[in-house]
Formats: sequence, structure tokens, C-alpha cells
Amino acid sequence: MDFSFDARTEELRQKLLAFMDSHIYPAEPVFERQLAEQDDPWSVPPIVDELKAQARGQGLWNLFLPGTYGADLTNLQYAPLAEITGRSPRLAPVALNCAAPDTGNMEILAMFGTERQKTRWLRPLLDGEIRSAFAMTEPDVASSDATNIATRIERDGDEYVINGRKWYTSGAMNPRCEILIVMGKTDPNTERHRRQSMILVPRNTRGVDVKRGMRVFGYDDADHGGHAEVEFTDVRVPAENLIAEEGAGFAISQARLGPGRIHHCMRLIGMAERAIELMCERAVSRTAFGKPLAEQGVVRGWIAEARVRAEQLRLLVLKTAWLMDTVGNKGAHAEIQAIKIATPQSVEWILDKAIQVHGAGGVSQDFPLGELWAQACMLRLADGPDEVHQQSLALRELRNHRK
Amino acid sequence: MDFSFDARTEELRQKLLAFMDSHIYPAEPVFERQLAEQDDPWSVPPIVDELKAQARGQGLWNLFLPGTYGADLTNLQYAPLAEITGRSPRLAPVALNCAAPDTGNMEILAMFGTERQKTRWLRPLLDGEIRSAFAMTEPDVASSDATNIATRIERDGDEYVINGRKWYTSGAMNPRCEILIVMGKTDPNTERHRRQSMILVPRNTRGVDVKRGMRVFGYDDADHGGHAEVEFTDVRVPAENLIAEEGAGFAISQARLGPGRIHHCMRLIGMAERAIELMCERAVSRTAFGKPLAEQGVVRGWIAEARVRAEQLRLLVLKTAWLMDTVGNKGAHAEIQAIKIATPQSVEWILDKAIQVHGAGGVSQDFPLGELWAQACMLRLADGPDEVHQQSLALRELRNHRK
Amino acid sequence: MDFSFDARTEELRQKLLAFMDSHIYPAEPVFERQLAEQDDPWSVPPIVDELKAQARGQGLWNLFLPGTYGADLTNLQYAPLAEITGRSPRLAPVALNCAAPDTGNMEILAMFGTERQKTRWLRPLLDGEIRSAFAMTEPDVASSDATNIATRIERDGDEYVINGRKWYTSGAMNPRCEILIVMGKTDPNTERHRRQSMILVPRNTRGVDVKRGMRVFGYDDADHGGHAEVEFTDVRVPAENLIAEEGAGFAISQARLGPGRIHHCMRLIGMAERAIELMCERAVSRTAFGKPLAEQGVVRGWIAEARVRAEQLRLLVLKTAWLMDTVGNKGAHAEIQAIKIATPQSVEWILDKAIQVHGAGGVSQDFPLGELWAQACMLRLADGPDEVHQQSLALRELRNHRK
Amino acid sequence: MDFSFDARTEELRQKLLAFMDSHIYPAEPVFERQLAEQDDPWSVPPIVDELKAQARGQGLWNLFLPGTYGADLTNLQYAPLAEITGRSPRLAPVALNCAAPDTGNMEILAMFGTERQKTRWLRPLLDGEIRSAFAMTEPDVASSDATNIATRIERDGDEYVINGRKWYTSGAMNPRCEILIVMGKTDPNTERHRRQSMILVPRNTRGVDVKRGMRVFGYDDADHGGHAEVEFTDVRVPAENLIAEEGAGFAISQARLGPGRIHHCMRLIGMAERAIELMCERAVSRTAFGKPLAEQGVVRGWIAEARVRAEQLRLLVLKTAWLMDTVGNKGAHAEIQAIKIATPQSVEWILDKAIQVHGAGGVSQDFPLGELWAQACMLRLADGPDEVHQQSLALRELRNHRK
Repeated sequence: MDFSFDARTEELRQKLLAFMDSHIYPAEPVFERQLAEQDDPWSVPPIVDELKAQARGQGLWNLFLPGTYGADLTNLQYAPLAEITGRSPRLAPVALNCAAPDTGNMEILAMFGTERQKTRWLRPLLDGEIRSAFAMTEPDVASSDATNIATRIERDGDEYVINGRKWYTSGAMNPRCEILIVMGKTDPNTERHRRQSMILVPRNTRGVDVKRGMRVFGYDDADHGGHAEVEFTDVRVPAENLIAEEGAGFAISQARLGPGRIHHCMRLIGMAERAIELMCERAVSRTAFGKPLAEQGVVRGWIAEARVRAEQLRLLVLKTAWLMDTVGNKGAHAEIQAIKIATPQSVEWILDKAIQVHGAGGVSQDFPLGELWAQACMLRLADGPDEVHQQSLALRELRNHRK
Repeated sequence: MDFSFDARTEELRQKLLAFMDSHIYPAEPVFERQLAEQDDPWSVPPIVDELKAQARGQGLWNLFLPGTYGADLTNLQYAPLAEITGRSPRLAPVALNCAAPDTGNMEILAMFGTERQKTRWLRPLLDGEIRSAFAMTEPDVASSDATNIATRIERDGDEYVINGRKWYTSGAMNPRCEILIVMGKTDPNTERHRRQSMILVPRNTRGVDVKRGMRVFGYDDADHGGHAEVEFTDVRVPAENLIAEEGAGFAISQARLGPGRIHHCMRLIGMAERAIELMCERAVSRTAFGKPLAEQGVVRGWIAEARVRAEQLRLLVLKTAWLMDTVGNKGAHAEIQAIKIATPQSVEWILDKAIQVHGAGGVSQDFPLGELWAQACMLRLADGPDEVHQQSLALRELRNHRK
Repeated sequence: MDFSFDARTEELRQKLLAFMDSHIYPAEPVFERQLAEQDDPWSVPPIVDELKAQARGQGLWNLFLPGTYGADLTNLQYAPLAEITGRSPRLAPVALNCAAPDTGNMEILAMFGTERQKTRWLRPLLDGEIRSAFAMTEPDVASSDATNIATRIERDGDEYVINGRKWYTSGAMNPRCEILIVMGKTDPNTERHRRQSMILVPRNTRGVDVKRGMRVFGYDDADHGGHAEVEFTDVRVPAENLIAEEGAGFAISQARLGPGRIHHCMRLIGMAERAIELMCERAVSRTAFGKPLAEQGVVRGWIAEARVRAEQLRLLVLKTAWLMDTVGNKGAHAEIQAIKIATPQSVEWILDKAIQVHGAGGVSQDFPLGELWAQACMLRLADGPDEVHQQSLALRELRNHRK
Repeated sequence: MDFSFDARTEELRQKLLAFMDSHIYPAEPVFERQLAEQDDPWSVPPIVDELKAQARGQGLWNLFLPGTYGADLTNLQYAPLAEITGRSPRLAPVALNCAAPDTGNMEILAMFGTERQKTRWLRPLLDGEIRSAFAMTEPDVASSDATNIATRIERDGDEYVINGRKWYTSGAMNPRCEILIVMGKTDPNTERHRRQSMILVPRNTRGVDVKRGMRVFGYDDADHGGHAEVEFTDVRVPAENLIAEEGAGFAISQARLGPGRIHHCMRLIGMAERAIELMCERAVSRTAFGKPLAEQGVVRGWIAEARVRAEQLRLLVLKTAWLMDTVGNKGAHAEIQAIKIATPQSVEWILDKAIQVHGAGGVSQDFPLGELWAQACMLRLADGPDEVHQQSLALRELRNHRK
């Protein structure tokens, strides 16, 4: 269980840290300005493409993706890099072509895609030319229980016909989003975990209706393609668009979730570090009741607790990454659940305190804290609320004690 | 300490409950639709004026205001009514002409205004014809310490000249907002609590620049006039616009805060009740892992805890109202601080759990929970973060133990 | 819902407050010394009898008991008095003959006892001549679910034969304890809530084996008769010792629990007030790192939060008392559960902070805080852990939302 | 940062795990019985000596001590072993001669002792023939601020004269305790951190009055020598008993604290693991309201959260151990504070939940949970309450942001 950075990681870290300083942080206000000024709220501000070109030029590209399609880093190698991108979560991940949901989608295509699917969709995604979306959650059922998914994918000759309603299909509002991976039921009558399948649906297919952007506490997250409500009415795609085979949906989603969750957690830690930094800066520069906030015992208590929490989270995430690298995603299942439970919750706490130190500014658009908070909160809900994971983690713990 | 509803309160409660059912709740989706469709995001949807006319017609008008200008209710009488309006906080308070910041501003004018000020500004406010704003918080200083306020109000002949920058001036984005009460420093050199004054500044005065709407976790709160950043550059108003006298600013703000805080707390409890209701409805109607959420022990624990917290808060608020009525706002100072600390915090907890039960829907625009949460969180910060009030409350507790 | 003190309550309050100052607080160190010096740890220190005589002489006697046997106070009248006794929980309740478990046992006898049972047992209890115990909890089953109770009470001619094992039978180690009320199963096959009965068992009956004192975090609570493990082996008592009728056990225990719980909660609030007082005294008298603890922001935050919590608890308990007086224990069921959940938990929090301010002294025998803490913690467990009550309270809340 | 067990650690782990199973756990009830039966509560039950002989025979001896006097393990090597001993904290550490406060005292003597001091005191301590105590905390001052220490150590010719009062001098009630290391002031007028010195005081020296055992939540901790109040009245010892030099007290205590704290944290994690185990066993074996506790969602939530917390703590402690090994105790200062803050608090939480699952049994003498809880709570206070460490940790975090 060795968490030291090896030479390659250290080299990439240095390069990425420099890139953050030279490109990402300076681009943040530009990005905000371009967002505010553009007519179509969902289109991508030009600064993003510039950053992508620069990052790719420096080899900071597709770092998340193992194997020959990507940078071929282990989870342990990628962890500190993903953390750094989390410090500017609206710009850095997309600049490095490491932004959700493309990351998970590229992984699926790399692992389970046919050559044709790879050529058609993986290639342009790897090149950052198009974006993608992952249509899983449904408004009408508790989607944390995947067997509840009601969208139908039915075979009809050489085609599949898709009917259903999804929401929080992140990324689908982005005009560059060209492809959706849709989860649905192919066979409602078979064994519970073999009912679902995943299928590729081009966004411009007839019957795909991207209805509106869902909000997250008032944020539309337009800059990363929003969270769409999408209605599928008799949507027909060629049968070859199916990923892997009928009934493989649940298994693929499990394969996708492990890396997806740990990436989120890594970035959340970066957000926490940014929040601690902002909290400290504010604390030394604001004076109330005759002394800087940094001399208030309560504020110091928060800063200390934030540091202690961030340290614990990082180590747990690193251990999980190491386990995924050594015993596989399945072997690291319990740890992946543990970080899914612990990280959003603790980082939300840190953000809450950072906001409190900033007063009204903390919830405003002038500091990133409110938006980071909303993301942390969303990640407590996304892909199953904490409680679902707790029940499952407890079962594993209880297993050895069964009578 | 009798918290029973007297006949008048009970009559108003029944009338208001019926009004909520017949007018307010049905108006909620209409309001959302009108808001979404209108060109100017800051203008007031027509449904609001209809509701105002209906409420006034039924005598549900200016209930917050003691004395002859208002409904002449005690705090204890108003408390259960304000709570009910909190169940639909974007529509009910404004429909009844009981919405902040007009409430506090009307109180100031009723208590401290000259006849001329009353005729010019209080009258149309009482009639719901115009809206107003209260310009206190500044971006550049920790405004919870009122002595930090840096905006200058300087006498120059028959006029006062105002220079400074405010933000989170709630209501000022509303095109109907015609008057601002501005807090600033008239004499920086006198005793600390005599340095500030308050002055009436018509919004269309030259030099008043309403720059932008500040956000609260992504929400612009456009429907109630937003939270403006306002720049004052050599703004000149007649000397008679001063409220009360030079140096009275701090005292007036203290007088304003007591009722303001308790009104917020009453409404917050109404929000909590709405959240509990939504949480229960969702819990019985959603099924995950083979049983309704309402049969999950964790969800039941949340519901129980929410009920226990809401009960405690309501009683504390009622006691505070009773104290304000019997010993005055000053005599109820400690209790006002206590509810300011306890209520937003506990209601935020309740909202958090209600959101968790709703999954992604909880943070979406399809349920009011996310927006209510943002308001509760803002009220933890508004008018001094919890910590400021805790310090002061502790001092009072420690007083008897001083060596 | 009027919580004001009426004349009788106010008179008793003043008398009791004076009695605390003149007799109880000065007796505390005497009591400790006598306890430490006596040979039999379970016997009652002589100071207790002196205090009892003095309290009774002043009319501060059996205040808890409604009706003609007692002081005939309502719950609302008794509440502030019980709170005051909670400030010195090891001495004041027993001095006033208002100590558990005698209180609950006297209530049972007064409500359900035959004349003969009253003469034999209620009379000497009312006179404070003997003590009693209540044998409910069993080591071998989860006793919060009363249907789990396994002790058998079987009819055999004119007698009942009792077999079973109880623990945490509070008071039974006291040499003055002469009578036990035992809960057990008379008919295991009937409807669930009619299986249990209660029966009077003199402590010196053959087959009653008081085996040992159970500890509560190291405390033996010897001063109030400890918590005994009691084994019943073929214990025979006359059939007339049965309370009410066969199958009435569950109903009687429900009747006993309401008042029992609220008395505990009232006293817990008194403990909280004592803790706040000690915390403040310590905070002003100890200096660390150059300033008194009272000037540390964190300590002030605790004091404020403690005050806010204590206020809320008191109001909730008063409301519950008022409800019990007006709509009966059954009508106040939800509120009784609410205070059972909220009070021990919040008071434990207050005690934890008071201990923290006292450093090592806080957990020592030189301050009452450690022992108070253990009692608060025990009351979270006693008579059903919080979680049981939460589930039940949630069910009531959900009832209106059932589909 | 490699946390894997090397061969030596793994070998010792296996040996220790086997020793726990074969000797320690079976000895627990014997130990309790012997403790209960012996006349002198403070004397050491014979089973302890048997265990010591067996442990030493197996090479499980003085594992804590680096260098040639001990087993020469690194902190990272010792960590998993100390954790295992924490599973039976009253027996395992003492059996392996790794119990506080001897551990810290041996370290001081090994690092700073003269040859003579080593021969006279270190040797018999290493052999487990005598016990020792560390007299630091004083009842009359906030001792977390070491400069408050008031005990005087004054030079008088060839002797030092000691006057003062200490309490919570752990181990001093043990009849085998022969030597005390006393912290006191030699020069009240010099620079703050050079005022204190440490001196060796044989327990039988004239003027040393071991007055009484202090309690920790009712526990006297007699089995490990209790926590004594000790009065020093004109106690004279030879000048050569001084450790290191005059004024070195603060520096020595700092050197002692690092390893002391991490050992406590390691053992606390072992306690947490034992608690989780007991909680799971109870949860599967108890039934309430128709199903095992293990099927209650709330209980499962606790078990999951306990696992997540324990994992985080262990990793943080391992990182700290690794840092101490690589950059020294000073370089690991922040991390040592972090584990001092996080570990007792989180383990207390875990123990609280384990107790809750056990009902009344959880606080009784029949399960170790109550006593473990008291130890965790004591460790929150010992050697500075959390708040002191938080302030200091925050300062370090703020350092880079100082204006």
C-alpha cells in the first residue's frame, strides 16, 4: 500500500500545477464573462477550446483513461492529478478532456464498444471534438434502485425502439453533445439484474426530445452542458448500437460506476482544498469586532477541522485507488462505497464553513463556493443517496457475523 | 406565557388557511410559468397583483404591522399567520403585503418617519403600490459588525451626499422598487454607535447605479426583486430625507431587526412544515429496494427528528413573540438572538433531509425544496452569522458569573 | 396553552428554591462524605433522612403525585418544581419523596391498586418509610419491545409462581427496598398486548435473589439503590398480589411511562441548567493561553448553544405537560415521545461541553458532571432507545399521507 | 508513503494475533474475577504476571520502544501491533510491557536519562518489574497550557525540593509503582518555555502523599494503577534525579507527547474495531419488533459509518507514523495534532453507537463498551482538549495566508 508519487505522476503533477497557474486560474474570470455575454446559455465559451488545445499540446490529455486509448495511468497515478483539476472544476477537467460524463462514456466504449462504435463515437470523444451524455436517472422512479428503471428498449427487426423519460441527463444541453448512452429495460421478465441494456442514441435521432435543463439549487450548470430532461418517443436506432449484449446494462453500469465515483471523489478533495484556501485568505483579510476573523477561535476550529477531514478523505481515496489497481474494481467495492459516502458529506461540511466565513459573498457568484457546495450536495444524491450505500456496506460488515 | 390563539387570531388563521388553499397553492405553478415566460426577469408576474387584490379584499393585508397603520396585531397574534405564509414564501407574503424588506421599511417609516416621509413613501407601501429596499450590507467589509459600514452620508448645505457600495440590497432589482433606505456613516469620529445614519434615497436619483443581481446559490430571487449590488456616487438627496436624526442609524437598525428576525423565523417554520409534508408524501409514494421509502428506518428517523425540531422551534418563537409583546423588543433581546441562531440552522437540517428523500428532484426546480434551502442558508448569514449572535448570547449568560 | 406559573406553583417554587439553597446544596458534600465512609455501600446515608423530614415539614412532599394521595398538582404545576430538583438529582428528588422508581410505582398503586395493596405498600411509600423497585428490563431480550419480556408469572391455585431474570431493576439494591413490581408473561398465547401482567413481589420472598448491582459507566448509583440483577426462581406470592388483572401489564406500563418520562425530562433540564452554571463559573475562573476560557470563542459558542437548547427543551416539556393535563396522557402520546427523544440527547450534548470546559475535573468525582452525563446517556437507552420512539413518531406523522 | 507491512511486522502481527486468541481474550473474564475478589482494589491481579511472562517468552515485549533498549520497531511497524493490543486495552498493553504511562517514561529515560538513572529505573521498567507514573496535570490550573504548571522544583544544595499538587497522575495508585516523573517549575522568571524541568521522585520519598484515586466517569481504572491525586510537600531528592537539565521540561514533554499520542490513537482504533465487532454480533443476535437489529436501517447506517470512520482514522494514523519515521516527530507535528483531534472523537462516536445497539448492557460491566467509551472521552481531554490542538493546527494552516 504505497501512496508515494512515482516519477511519471510527479512529472505530470508539476506540469499540471504549472498549467493551473498559467492557464486555468487566469481563465476563470474570462470564462465567467464569456458565459454571461453569450446569447445561447448552453453553448461553450471560446476560452474552453483554447484551453483544450493548450492542455493537449502539453500532454495533459485523457489522463483518466487507462489503456492504449488514454494516458494509461493507474488510478493511483491519476488521483493526485484529478484532485488538482477539482480546484477549478468548471474549467480544468474539461480542458484536459477529463470531464464527466464523457469520461465514463469513453470508458464504456473503450471496454465494451465494437470497433465500429469506437470509430464512430470514441474517437471524436477522445479528440474532444464532441461531447456525450449518460441517460440513466428517471423522474418517475427511485433510480438508485436500478431495477426500477422503466424506459423500454425493444427489439424490432434490425432496430431497437426506445420509449421513456429521463432527467438529470448531464451534458445533454450542450450543443456539442452528439451521442447519448441510454439505460433501459430490454426484457422485463428475466432475472432482475439482466433486464437492462445500454444503447447508443445519437442526440439528433427523431423522437429524442431534449426538453429543458434541470437545475441544481438554482444553478443550470450550463457551462458543462446542464442536466437535461429528455423524452424518448418511439426512438429508433440500428440494432448494432446496443452496447455489449442484451441484459448487460446493469453489469456495464457497475463497471462504469467504480471509476466514475473515485474521479468525483478526487475532484471533491480538490474543491475542499480550494475552499480551505479561500477560507484562510478571507479569514486573514476580514476584520470584525476589532480583530481579523483568523483570530476568532470558532473560525480557527473550522479551519483545523477542515484540514483534518481533507487529510482523512484523501488517504481513503488513495487507498481505494490503490486497491482498484491491485485487486480490481470488484475487490475494491466496499472502499468505493466508503468514499462515495464519506467524501461528498465531508466536503459539503468544509464548503459550508468556508461559505460561513465569507458571509453573503460566500453564496454569491463572486466566489466559487456556492456552486461547489451545490455540486457536493448533488454528489450525495447522484448515483444513489448515501443511505443506499450505507446499507450495502453494513451488509458486508455483518456478513462475518451472520448466525 | 399563554400561547393559545385568541378569537381574532383564530379567525384570521382560518381565513388565511382557506386563502392558501383557494388562491396561493393553485397560483404557484401559474407564477412559475409567468416568471419563465416574461422578458424582463425582474418584473413582477401579473398573478401577484391579482393575489394582492384578493388578499386585501379579504382583510389579509399588512398583518405584520402594529399600530393604526397596519392590522394592529401583536407579535403573538401575527406569529401563526406568518408561519402559514412561509409555506409558500415566494407568493403568500407578497400577496398579503407582508414581504421583506418592505415590512421592515414600513416599520421604520411608521415609527421614525416624518409626516412628509410617511405621506410620500409609507402610504404607497401600505397600499402595495410600490416596493422598497434596504441597503445595509457592503461587499468590502464584514457588515455583521455595523461599525464597519463604510458608505458615507455627508451633509452639504440642504442636502446629504452619499458615496459607497452596497450589495445584497434585497428588492432593489424590482422595477417597482422606488425607494431605498440607506445606512451609512455621517460622523466617523464620534462614539461607535452614533456614527451611522439612515436616509431615504429614491431609486431613480442621479448617481444611484443598480449594477447587477447577486445570486444565492444560483438563484436570482428575481420574483421578489433580487439582491442588488448598488453603487452610490455623489448621490444627493434633500436633508429632510434623513430618518430621525444624525447618528440614529444604529438604534433604528436595532429596532428594525427584532421584528424582522422573528418574522423570518416564523416563515422558516412554515417552510419546515411544508418540507415535512413533502417528505412524507414522497416517502409514501416512492418505492426502492422492494418497499416504500416510508418503511425505511432511516427515513422514519428523519421524519421524527424533523417533527421534534419543528415543535421546539415554534415554541421558542412563540415565547419570543410573547416576550416582545410584554417586555418589549429590548427585553426580548436574548430570545431574539436565540431564535436567530436556532431556526435557520434547524430548518436547514429539515430541508436537507427532505431533499435527500426526493433524490435529484429535491434540488430541481420541480420542487420548492432547493430554493427553500437556499433561503434558510442565507438567513444563517443574513444580519450576522450565527457565530456573532452566539458570542453575544454567551456574554449575557456569563454576566452573572463574572468575577 | 398557558405556561405561566399560577399562584400555587409560584409559592412552591419559591419555597423549593429556598430549600435548595438552605438544605440541599449544603448537604451535597456531606452526602458524599457519608457515602464514602459507610461500610455498606448500598445503605442510605443519614443526611437523606434528615432532608426528608425537613422537606416534608415544609410541605415539599409527594409533589409528583396527582389526586388525593399526593400534592394534587397538574403536570404543568409540577414541571418547574421537578426541574429544580434535577439540579441536585441525587438528593433533591429523594428528599421530597419524588424519586424514581418510587414515583411510578406509587402512581400504579394509586391508580390500579386494591385497598389492601394500597394500605400495605402505597401508604409506607407515601410516607417515605420504604423504597420500591420496578423489575422490567431483562438481560436476555431486547426489552424495548415489551412483547419480548420472557419472565413467567404462572397461576398455581391461590398463588402466582414467578420465574425469570431481570436486570437494571433500579432501587433494588437499597436495603430499604421492600417491594418489587414485576412485569412478566401470564399468557404467552393470547393477543400480543394482553400477554403481560404486573405483580407485587416483596423483596424478601423466598426465591428472589438480588444478585449484584449493575453499573452505568462505572457508577453503581448506590445512593439511590443501584440497578440490580434479580433472579426469580419459583417465587410464590398470593394471587391477590396481581395488579389489576391478568393481561393488564402492557396497559399499566403505558400508563406508568407517560408521567415517568416527563418527570425524567423535567429533571434533565434542571441538570442542564446546573451544567450551564458550572460551565460559566469555570469559564470565568480558568485561564489558559493568556485569557480566561470565557473569552475563547469556542467556549462562548458552546454556552450560547447550550442556552438555546435548554430553552427549546423546556418549552417542549411544558407544552407536553399542558397537553397531558388537558387531553390526557394518550392524547399527548406524540409529544411524550418527542421529549423522550429530544431531552436526553440535547442534555447529553450540554453536559459533554460542560465537561470539556472542566478538563479532567469534568470526568472526576469532584464535579457532578460525569455522573449527570451517565444519567443522561442511560435515559437515552432506558425505556426504549431513541430509535424506537423515532419510528413510532414518524408513523404518526406519515399517517395522514398514507396512500 | 508505503503502508504495507514488511516481513518483520507481519511476523509479529501473526504472533500477536495468535497470542490474543490463545491468551488475552480467555484471560479477560479471569482478570475481572480476580479484580473483584482481591482485597486491595489497587493491587495487580496475578493473571497479569502470567501473561507478562508468556508474552515476553514469545518475544512480544517492549515493542513500543525504538533503539537497542526495545524491540527497535519503527512507528509504522509498531502501529498495527499497538492497534491489536487496543482490542483488549486493559490486558494486552500491560502484558506486552507496552502500557502507558510506562511507555512514555521509558522513552524519556532512554533518550534523556543518565547511565545511573537508566540502571536504577529504566532497567526494572524494561523488565516489567516495577511500574511508574507521570505527574503533570494539576487540579488548580488549566494544565493544557504547560506554562500554567505551578508545582515548584527548587534547588537547595545537592538536592531539589518539590512542592505542589498533581492529579490524574495515572498509574500512581498501583502498589508496584516505584517512581514518578514530576514536571514542575524550576525558574519562574525565565523565558516561558524554559521554566519547567522534570525530575525523578521515588514514590516512597518522604513528603510524597498519594491521596486518592481520581475517577473517570465512575471508573477508578484500578487495574492499571488508577489516576492519583498526589501532594508533594517539601519533597527532597538528590540533584542528580533531574532529567537532562534545568529548563528542559517543556522540550522533554514535547518529545514524549508525539509517540504517546500516536500510541493512544493506534490503540483507540483497536478499541473501535472491537466495538464494531461487538455491535455486529449484537445486531445479528437480538430481535426487536419482529426482526433482528441487523435488519434495522438505522443500525446498518451506524455500522457503515463506523467502518468508514475507522478506515479513515487508521490511514491518518499510519501516515503520521510514516512521517514520524521519515521526517521526525517535529516534522510530523501537524499530523500528530490531527490524529489527536480526530481519533478520540470519532472512536467515541463509534462506541456510542455500539452502546446504543447493546441497550442497558452497553453501559454495564458485562460488556467492555462503557469503559472503552470513558477512555476515549478521557483522551479527548488528556494532554489538551481538542480545542487547543485545533487552534494550533489552524495557525499552521493560516501561516501561508498571513498578510
